[in-house]
Amino acid sequence: MAAGPHHSVHRPVRIAVVGERATSDENRASARAIGAEIGRRGGVLVCGAMGGVMEAAAEGCAAEHGLVVGIVPTADAADANPFVAIPVVTGMGEGRNVIIARTAEAMIAVGGSYGTLSEIALALRAGVPVVGLATWRFEAPAQGSDSVVRASSASEAVDRAWSLALERRSGTI
Amino acid sequence: MAAGPHHSVHRPVRIAVVGERATSDENRASARAIGAEIGRRGGVLVCGAMGGVMEAAAEGCAAEHGLVVGIVPTADAADANPFVAIPVVTGMGEGRNVIIARTAEAMIAVGGSYGTLSEIALALRAGVPVVGLATWRFEAPAQGSDSVVRASSASEAVDRAWSLALERRSGTI
Amino acid sequence: MAAGPHHSVHRPVRIAVVGERATSDENRASARAIGAEIGRRGGVLVCGAMGGVMEAAAEGCAAEHGLVVGIVPTADAADANPFVAIPVVTGMGEGRNVIIARTAEAMIAVGGSYGTLSEIALALRAGVPVVGLATWRFEAPAQGSDSVVRASSASEAVDRAWSLALERRSGTI
Amino acid sequence: MAAGPHHSVHRPVRIAVVGERATSDENRASARAIGAEIGRRGGVLVCGAMGGVMEAAAEGCAAEHGLVVGIVPTADAADANPFVAIPVVTGMGEGRNVIIARTAEAMIAVGGSYGTLSEIALALRAGVPVVGLATWRFEAPAQGSDSVVRASSASEAVDRAWSLALERRSGTI
Repeated sequence: MAAGPHHSVHRPVRIAVVGERATSDENRASARAIGAEIGRRGGVLVCGAMGGVMEAAAEGCAAEHGLVVGIVPTADAADANPFVAIPVVTGMGEGRNVIIARTAEAMIAVGGSYGTLSEIALALRAGVPVVGLATWRFEAPAQGSDSVVRASSASEAVDRAWSLALERRSGTI
Repeated sequence: MAAGPHHSVHRPVRIAVVGERATSDENRASARAIGAEIGRRGGVLVCGAMGGVMEAAAEGCAAEHGLVVGIVPTADAADANPFVAIPVVTGMGEGRNVIIARTAEAMIAVGGSYGTLSEIALALRAGVPVVGLATWRFEAPAQGSDSVVRASSASEAVDRAWSLALERRSGTI
Repeated sequence: MAAGPHHSVHRPVRIAVVGERATSDENRASARAIGAEIGRRGGVLVCGAMGGVMEAAAEGCAAEHGLVVGIVPTADAADANPFVAIPVVTGMGEGRNVIIARTAEAMIAVGGSYGTLSEIALALRAGVPVVGLATWRFEAPAQGSDSVVRASSASEAVDRAWSLALERRSGTI
Repeated sequence: MAAGPHHSVHRPVRIAVVGERATSDENRASARAIGAEIGRRGGVLVCGAMGGVMEAAAEGCAAEHGLVVGIVPTADAADANPFVAIPVVTGMGEGRNVIIARTAEAMIAVGGSYGTLSEIALALRAGVPVVGLATWRFEAPAQGSDSVVRASSASEAVDRAWSLALERRSGTI
């Protein structure tokens, strides 16, 4: 039987890890370490559900029994990498990038294809803080340089992203 | 430290519960019972994250410590009802209905507004089985009557949806 | 050289014609006649860009030198039927149905698959009037029967849809 | 009565012009000149339907009697700027950026906010050539610098974009 009235549930911190499918061993190792640390902290890893950085991060998180939510670009949950426990099936191709950006409380970008750049830009557009590891740098005449927080290691990336997510949740930023 | 190589994770059964925001006490009670049963079975409840049927189902599931994924129509996770543990933030309004339909392995519709009807139709279009409780009936000249499986109680609805989801997963249907 | 300051442009009436890909000769003929009448009146035909009813309506409109906007479900404009002058490429599959519904000032549904039903429901949800010709009928316990305006001929369908679109534009409905 | 069988219609070249809402007078003037040139050439201007660069480009195009298609982020066509003749209403917020990118046969970016950067990245991801005027520059470790074609004037931007669109249409690139 159901317990008495419940007024809310705990919402674990949602960190998106984004990056390219075809990536280097180094980026893959970074992504795995980032995913593992998110899992150890009890966070939810949000990713694009495909291979490369997305899969390495998911594998790391799953190995620590963390929950992986994959925002699937195709219309078939079976296309998600095997470490995704909750495939969210959009069938929207790169249209799903905006969902990854909006769902995250902070984003970590590792390496980078143009898809990754779009996710970074959509997150910054939505006011979601972005931490970068070996990823895109960009500047525009009227904007100056970008507002990505640069990290030099997986653990630093998670530290920064986690803090930023908590600050955002509390309304500090 | 992360455990050894992991090759896949368990994917809990994903059941969507859809229905109107402004609903009757009876539909609300049905939705709560449906959500509770999904939670007891270890399923993931997928819903539209708003009020009414969506919230009642989420409350029932959360009360049984089940996981509630809410596909949020607005661009703000804070708009999700308090029983959603994992808000997936789309900012796409009713555009998120197709994501609910595609993410579900089976859908249960309770009562019904036009939004609900769109979710039923999108699920059937995607080959996702739909179980209905006090919901829309529809027919077209060349189609005959609809293929919604009718249930007369919350527990029957979950029984049918769960079986259909497993059959679909195994490729039987 | 550009002319002087312009303060607005004329927005032609946008009528969506929706219906199944695999359809009967009768529905195809109706769709063609509907498209032709929209073209003669100087309206813009909005459709799903694929075959069947969508293509027949587009062909009819193009034959009268009317403008056809096709909301393409795939990621490739080349998939649009040859009567679409302006392909809007979404790559969102059935996710594009909500765009068809929102873009229309009135919708005409001819025949019907589940995709068509979803478009009807999304239009009604968005407050866009729907005229039906040999299409879905539906009812729900608390809703009663549907609010689709039934027509019995192509010309009646356009008459009704056009009037409803103008009423909606003027704020009368 | 409809003319005889039609086998296809002419599809005018679709050029997207993207850029920030709050922009400089210089960018606004560039956008207006770009839109005017697209209109003079008989192209379709695809834009995000809002203000700033989007509106200036639309105004320029409309002044030359060119057709402006606006991909509206809100759920209301009335939110489109007054130079949009065909509002395509998505209700998807920045989710509409991917539709702009996919619909364009070439994109011209003027100035730049993060939303603009996302549109550039989504276009490049989709294989749509991008011409930039006073816009973002970006590079990543494994990617080198970006592949945006830089222009130094409005007319050069349209020249380049138009050529690239035709090359893409003919399969040359």
